[in-house]
Amino acid sequence: MRRALELAERGPARGVNPRVGCVILSPDGDVLAEGWHRGAGTAHAEVDALSKLAPGAARGATAVVTLEPCNHVGRTGPCAQALVDAGVARVVYAVDDPGRHSAGGSRTLEQAGVDVSRGVLADEVEGFLEDWLFATRERRPRVTLKWASSLDGRVGAADGTSRWITGREARADVHRRRASADAIAVGMGTVLADDPALTARDDDGALLDDQPVPVVFGVRAIPAGAAVLRHPLEPITLAGADLADDLEQLQRRGIRSLFVEGGPTLASAVLAAGLVDELLVYLAPAVIGGPLTAIGDIGVATIAEAQRFHFTDLVRLGDDVLVVARPGTAAHPDTPTRERV
Amino acid sequence: MRRALELAERGPARGVNPRVGCVILSPDGDVLAEGWHRGAGTAHAEVDALSKLAPGAARGATAVVTLEPCNHVGRTGPCAQALVDAGVARVVYAVDDPGRHSAGGSRTLEQAGVDVSRGVLADEVEGFLEDWLFATRERRPRVTLKWASSLDGRVGAADGTSRWITGREARADVHRRRASADAIAVGMGTVLADDPALTARDDDGALLDDQPVPVVFGVRAIPAGAAVLRHPLEPITLAGADLADDLEQLQRRGIRSLFVEGGPTLASAVLAAGLVDELLVYLAPAVIGGPLTAIGDIGVATIAEAQRFHFTDLVRLGDDVLVVARPGTAAHPDTPTRERV
Ligand SMILES: NC(=O)c1ccc[n+]([C@@H]2O[C@H](COP(=O)([O-])OP(=O)(O)OC[C@H]3O[C@@H](n4cnc5c(N)ncnc54)[C@H](OP(=O)(O)O)[C@@H]3O)[C@@H](O)[C@H]2O)c1
Ligand SMILES: NC(=O)c1ccc[n+]([C@@H]2O[C@H](COP(=O)([O-])OP(=O)(O)OC[C@H]3O[C@@H](n4cnc5c(N)ncnc54)[C@H](OP(=O)(O)O)[C@@H]3O)[C@@H](O)[C@H]2O)c1
Repeated sequence: MRRALELAERGPARGVNPRVGCVILSPDGDVLAEGWHRGAGTAHAEVDALSKLAPGAARGATAVVTLEPCNHVGRTGPCAQALVDAGVARVVYAVDDPGRHSAGGSRTLEQAGVDVSRGVLADEVEGFLEDWLFATRERRPRVTLKWASSLDGRVGAADGTSRWITGREARADVHRRRASADAIAVGMGTVLADDPALTARDDDGALLDDQPVPVVFGVRAIPAGAAVLRHPLEPITLAGADLADDLEQLQRRGIRSLFVEGGPTLASAVLAAGLVDELLVYLAPAVIGGPLTAIGDIGVATIAEAQRFHFTDLVRLGDDVLVVARPGTAAHPDTPTRERV
Repeated sequence: MRRALELAERGPARGVNPRVGCVILSPDGDVLAEGWHRGAGTAHAEVDALSKLAPGAARGATAVVTLEPCNHVGRTGPCAQALVDAGVARVVYAVDDPGRHSAGGSRTLEQAGVDVSRGVLADEVEGFLEDWLFATRERRPRVTLKWASSLDGRVGAADGTSRWITGREARADVHRRRASADAIAVGMGTVLADDPALTARDDDGALLDDQPVPVVFGVRAIPAGAAVLRHPLEPITLAGADLADDLEQLQRRGIRSLFVEGGPTLASAVLAAGLVDELLVYLAPAVIGGPLTAIGDIGVATIAEAQRFHFTDLVRLGDDVLVVARPGTAAHPDTPTRERV
């Protein structure tokens, strides 16, 4: 299974399909063939491995695969049936397929008399497939909401000026996190006000290797000449009237993780819709006051309705502090910890 | 000098006068007498020590005293003159007296032919007298402003409910800090809305040994039956129209440190007046949104006018985080530090 996971890692980290690896072993335990999935439209890992064998060579063999073999008739045919047809006697896999149409392969295999073992190295493979599993189970990308504010939760002064509330280290951290997300979203208000490039850049402004797909929420048109139109990846625009529906569309387009950068109107709408999986608040050691709050109304009428999170990380970034939180209350820590800064 | 500092510690930690200790040594270095100050209206340390000697016994002696001998004619007469009159040949002290009326004792001594050495153990004595020196130099108490809010800077929900945003550990920390302040202040709005006791209590609600003087800012009357009227110390009320002037009054009444607990209107006024020496923000892992911001308008029109602080401490308290900050930007830390929570 560890070898199958290594093979899986050769696949593409983004897209609608998971990274899967497969090893076919003879009854004596010799490796007969290896395969992995190279992304949507190409052979699944099991079929890729079987394709390397002469007809009949897999008879009585064991297939070790990181994900439950699929059951659906997609562009490549169901893997479960392909394994049955090849005469495979035993299938060992790590994690159940959570897909609506693809799940159930293990039942197909068992009904055909194949011996099935599940759960081998499951934690490791779960971790490896985390974003894909989340997106497939929840039918939306994992949403990280980020904002940068003063200690009193302001994103700018009364006249609208806001550059820069946080410092260089905090901005560099944002760019690193942009690079590791599949897509990055802003509201049309931010496009019109700030004309952001929505790229992930290094300290010198050069593009990082991984770029998130830019997503703009709003019904107004992106102005011709907007920086986002020069992004290396084509922007996706979504109306934002039904955020849950919009996010499902993004998941269907292969976006597993979405980094929402604001502004306040979009951020408040995403919170109000209960769609936040991780919160990143970059706090500058400043107090501003006045009208420009990071978050507006999120529909909390009384204190019991406050959206509760729990802190998972506190990171000092230059003069600023990054607070990371996840939804829900956490098990209580034993002792208060303390960091002098 | 270390013995003089030990003697000083016997004095009262609060009040308008500093804690001072004095040792009188013979020309051979034998201790002839010791003294310390027991609070306003009683003998100063030098006079207390001299009073233990027979007339003439201090002739040619050395007086070691933690603070520059005073020069003013207060309730007890100037100590500098008393030392001269006693025939003391040499005075060694740690820290200059910053008082407007009391400073200059060393000059009086030198003009009378006494040999004066200053700065002995100065850092240690500066630390010991920190709050008193601050209050005397700035002519106001050292001000700590505290608020407790959600991550988006809200102190309550739209309907005004606010109990409890932060948890038990955070509230216990507030009570410990209340106990170490000379006085604790709130605005009349908080007295009317919450009827706070303004006492420092332990987890079981019992009064801690040290109690801050309760201070209420506002022109409206404290309602009869208000909890603050049952405080072990008599409340001070101040109009709040001129906060700098009010704080000078508190300093003249012997209050060296003031813990301002809000509400938002008073907190914003104290910030707008530039009177904050330390900021304590208790952040709950929650998002509330809506109208109840911890800080309102503080007169920041454009981002360059934002009040800049620097973080000095981040403390995890149960589910919450305490952020401590002081005014001004700090020297840049070498490397970002990180605390997993
Ligand atoms: N400090 C930070 O972290 C940060 C980050 C980003 C931006 N900002 C600042 O925020 C300001 C812009 O704020 P903003 O609030 O006007 O911009 P915004 O949130 O970026 O955009 C608001 C627009 O988003 C569209 N939208 C799409 N779906 C929506 C939904 N479900 N709910 C609400 N709106 C939706 C609407 O545009 P349509 O009318 O076209 O539908 C709406 O007018 C700028 O000044 C920028 O500098 C700060
Ligand atoms: N989360 C927290 O940390 C926290 C802490 C405390 C309170 N609170 C909440 O805050 C709410 C009360 O807020 P609030 O803003 O109305 O109360 P506040 O700030 O306690 O009181 C405002 C009043 O203070 C007086 N005042 C005196 N000097 C002033 C000055 N220089 N500037 C402005 N006001 C001055 C005025 O009273 P006069 O009109 O009588 O002159 C004014 O109306 C309560 O609901 C309470 O629960 C929250």
